[in-house]
Amino acid sequence: MEAESWAECLELAVRIARSAGQMVQEAVKQEKRVSSKSTPTDLVTEADQQVEDLIISTLRERFPSHRFIGEESSATGEKCVLTDSPTWIIDPIDGTCNFVHSFPMVAVSIGFAVKKELEFGVIYHCFDGTLYTARRGHGAFCNGVRLRVSQEKDVSKSLILTEIGAKRDPNTLEIFLGNMKKLLSAPVHGVRIIGSSTLALCHIASGAAEAYYQYGLHCWDIAAAAVIIREAGGCVIDTTGGPLDLMSRRVVAAGSREIADYIVQQLQPINYGRDDQDP
Amino acid sequence: MEAESWAECLELAVRIARSAGQMVQEAVKQEKRVSSKSTPTDLVTEADQQVEDLIISTLRERFPSHRFIGEESSATGEKCVLTDSPTWIIDPIDGTCNFVHSFPMVAVSIGFAVKKELEFGVIYHCFDGTLYTARRGHGAFCNGVRLRVSQEKDVSKSLILTEIGAKRDPNTLEIFLGNMKKLLSAPVHGVRIIGSSTLALCHIASGAAEAYYQYGLHCWDIAAAAVIIREAGGCVIDTTGGPLDLMSRRVVAAGSREIADYIVQQLQPINYGRDDQDP
Repeated sequence: MEAESWAECLELAVRIARSAGQMVQEAVKQEKRVSSKSTPTDLVTEADQQVEDLIISTLRERFPSHRFIGEESSATGEKCVLTDSPTWIIDPIDGTCNFVHSFPMVAVSIGFAVKKELEFGVIYHCFDGTLYTARRGHGAFCNGVRLRVSQEKDVSKSLILTEIGAKRDPNTLEIFLGNMKKLLSAPVHGVRIIGSSTLALCHIASGAAEAYYQYGLHCWDIAAAAVIIREAGGCVIDTTGGPLDLMSRRVVAAGSREIADYIVQQLQPINYGRDDQDP
Repeated sequence: MEAESWAECLELAVRIARSAGQMVQEAVKQEKRVSSKSTPTDLVTEADQQVEDLIISTLRERFPSHRFIGEESSATGEKCVLTDSPTWIIDPIDGTCNFVHSFPMVAVSIGFAVKKELEFGVIYHCFDGTLYTARRGHGAFCNGVRLRVSQEKDVSKSLILTEIGAKRDPNTLEIFLGNMKKLLSAPVHGVRIIGSSTLALCHIASGAAEAYYQYGLHCWDIAAAAVIIREAGGCVIDTTGGPLDLMSRRVVAAGSREIADYIVQQLQPINYGRDDQDP
């Protein structure tokens, strides 16, 4: 399949994200059976698995030679390795804890990489139906309207987003809260924690916040959003300031390189291991 | 005016909240002139004043004998004292920092008290148009659908909301983050910070989160929401565990008294003074 035809993959991704999102919204109204994965606060429900199955089976039928990395497949032991093959990177329910509580910030995220390069991303907000899309070199859009990151370069006028991560041991919490303290002391305008990495990253793309940072997220939280932010003019980098490593479980995303660099300088790292290595 | 006719006041409050909310949504698209009040991170815009003027002038024309407590009137020196008179308690733009960034969680809040008792509350989400209303003894509603708080009593299965407050001195931040650490260590399912006290409190009423606590909010952040949460079956109390003091700049709200009590036991206080005393 030639590069031009990734547009067809994107079209299908949009259709699947919408139907998966509607499935999630229906599931919100049902009783949820909740269990936990890596830690007591790393939640999963039957719906996560069902929605991922729907997405992957539909894509696999149409593109049998493609590879798939999904949150729930990975949890059940499938290897999480990015090769040169066309690869779909899927989070069926981003914000599972929000989903469990019917807290209205939950998204379906579908990213697509070829030769280890992210080609497009689709994120669907399951509660309000907002659709974020971007294809490399073709711009980023929210419900069809072009997205543009914030042009603010002064960190003291910035709104910063982050997420807590699943680890709650005293040492991790100490570093997490210490990082937050440094930014609040800058002082930035504010720090927000909404419980969905992908939707938080969409707010960076739309210019509603200046930067996002997190330790402990996964490749399926960042794949689609990275394309959307870059196509909206923003930067997505490693917490060390180097290039993004999709499997490194850490990220800084920002509208401007200046604010990204400031955050990089403030952060003390939290080690969550890698997505492509056994824990 | 007799008690039965507070329904007429509520009807007008709903109409005004909707038109004020639409005015806020229009103002989001404009360039904002931002200045600060008590601290560099306590923001205010021209829109805050304009929207409050619209709300108060409309209400005063219809109810000339009523009293008014508004965020912006208070900032310009009007006394913030609750008497026995019918009193409207108004936040024209709750989430001003979000408003400045076009971060889509901003609300208009209109509460109403008579003989120091809260009679009804109206909160309008300016971005998605969700309308929360409640009248004492008549239930709480979101877009006309009855609200019910979460029945969860196990804090380790709870989602907790809070806000940072305007003070960023090292001591305040230390206590704020220490409180967050205690709850994250419980461990609760998660902590969220969305940047709008009133919308966060609406999530308690709807059952999307189990509890909210904050030091540093104002009477106009809590007045309308307190009625909505109580009519949805929840409790709204002081951070000491005693009855809510509307002017005390602190609150714990929860679906269940059990979770409220747990939070009360964890919190170390932050002193923000009182709304009815000079700073």
